[in-house]
Amino acid sequence: MGEAIQKMPRTERGRRTLRSLLDAAAAEFGEKGFHNASISGITTRAGAALGSFYTYFDSKDAIFRALVRDMSRRVKEHVAPAMAGAPDQLGAERQGLAAFLAFAREHKEIYRIIDEAEFVDPQSYRLHYETTAERIRERLQAAAERGEVRTDVSDIHAWAIMGMNVFLGLRYVVWADEEPSKVAAIASEMISDGLKPR
Amino acid sequence: MGEAIQKMPRTERGRRTLRSLLDAAAAEFGEKGFHNASISGITTRAGAALGSFYTYFDSKDAIFRALVRDMSRRVKEHVAPAMAGAPDQLGAERQGLAAFLAFAREHKEIYRIIDEAEFVDPQSYRLHYETTAERIRERLQAAAERGEVRTDVSDIHAWAIMGMNVFLGLRYVVWADEEPSKVAAIASEMISDGLKPR
Repeated sequence: MGEAIQKMPRTERGRRTLRSLLDAAAAEFGEKGFHNASISGITTRAGAALGSFYTYFDSKDAIFRALVRDMSRRVKEHVAPAMAGAPDQLGAERQGLAAFLAFAREHKEIYRIIDEAEFVDPQSYRLHYETTAERIRERLQAAAERGEVRTDVSDIHAWAIMGMNVFLGLRYVVWADEEPSKVAAIASEMISDGLKPR
Repeated sequence: MGEAIQKMPRTERGRRTLRSLLDAAAAEFGEKGFHNASISGITTRAGAALGSFYTYFDSKDAIFRALVRDMSRRVKEHVAPAMAGAPDQLGAERQGLAAFLAFAREHKEIYRIIDEAEFVDPQSYRLHYETTAERIRERLQAAAERGEVRTDVSDIHAWAIMGMNVFLGLRYVVWADEEPSKVAAIASEMISDGLKPR
């Protein structure tokens, strides 16, 4: 996210202003889409002066780019602690999926924003998914070394799991309002045990 | 797709013109995106007169809507026969995924078009995924009745598998050029057997 921001705030007040601008941008882009969103719409929502906006961003494109990276980072920071304490990595993945779904339920705009990045800011779009898949792959391969998952786990498994998580969030959390832990339990059992009859 | 088309062609020549217009629209929207695409760009690519366009479509929105539904139908028609002849449903799903990936490799523009439908034509976007997931759910539940997959398969499994398939296509076929059957084999083995060590 740093590279889209012209100047990182040095004071607590500056950090709060930047956070307000990013939260306001999430609401503005989420509600109106990129093309209909405006810088004045963002500053009004944030209760910030136009000058504050231009302290941190030089354009609507710049704050959109910063927002995609900010959301990517926030998902990661929300999911990582939720994975702790699981008995094994497959359990941790289930807890992580439930945490992701809960995050998406509170921040439904994340779907529209990340999806629109494919058109507005393809580099951030790709970066978001590549870094997310890479984290999953690293977790799976570390788990394979501990004997918790099969030894041949690869980037293909990571992309498959990420795609599953994204679509479950779209269907059950953004479009409907299912309980995240229930959806996560069912999907994760498929990942652990497969669909073959037992 | 019918509802976006003003009048269905009654002659073979009319059907060919309509097909040319839809193929040209796929190229135009895939290359330029919805907003920069133009009706004249589509008719030029199709080698068709503007009057032919307006015989079938009343606007750029209308042909976009018809195109999303046409692509949805073509994917289905491409994948269905590829699933035949498999020893069981999990084998059929693997063959279906390989066929989908092969289709996406030949029609990479399908990703940009379906993804852009989220913004240009949300109803078609949702319809595409809902009907695709519904087909998967029906196949899995029929297979459960034959004892080929676990008995509790549900729409959650269907959406998980669809999301997996979509992201594998994006990563390995649109962004890279992997062999579809290899990707399908690895992902499908996860769906069949799960990731637990054997």
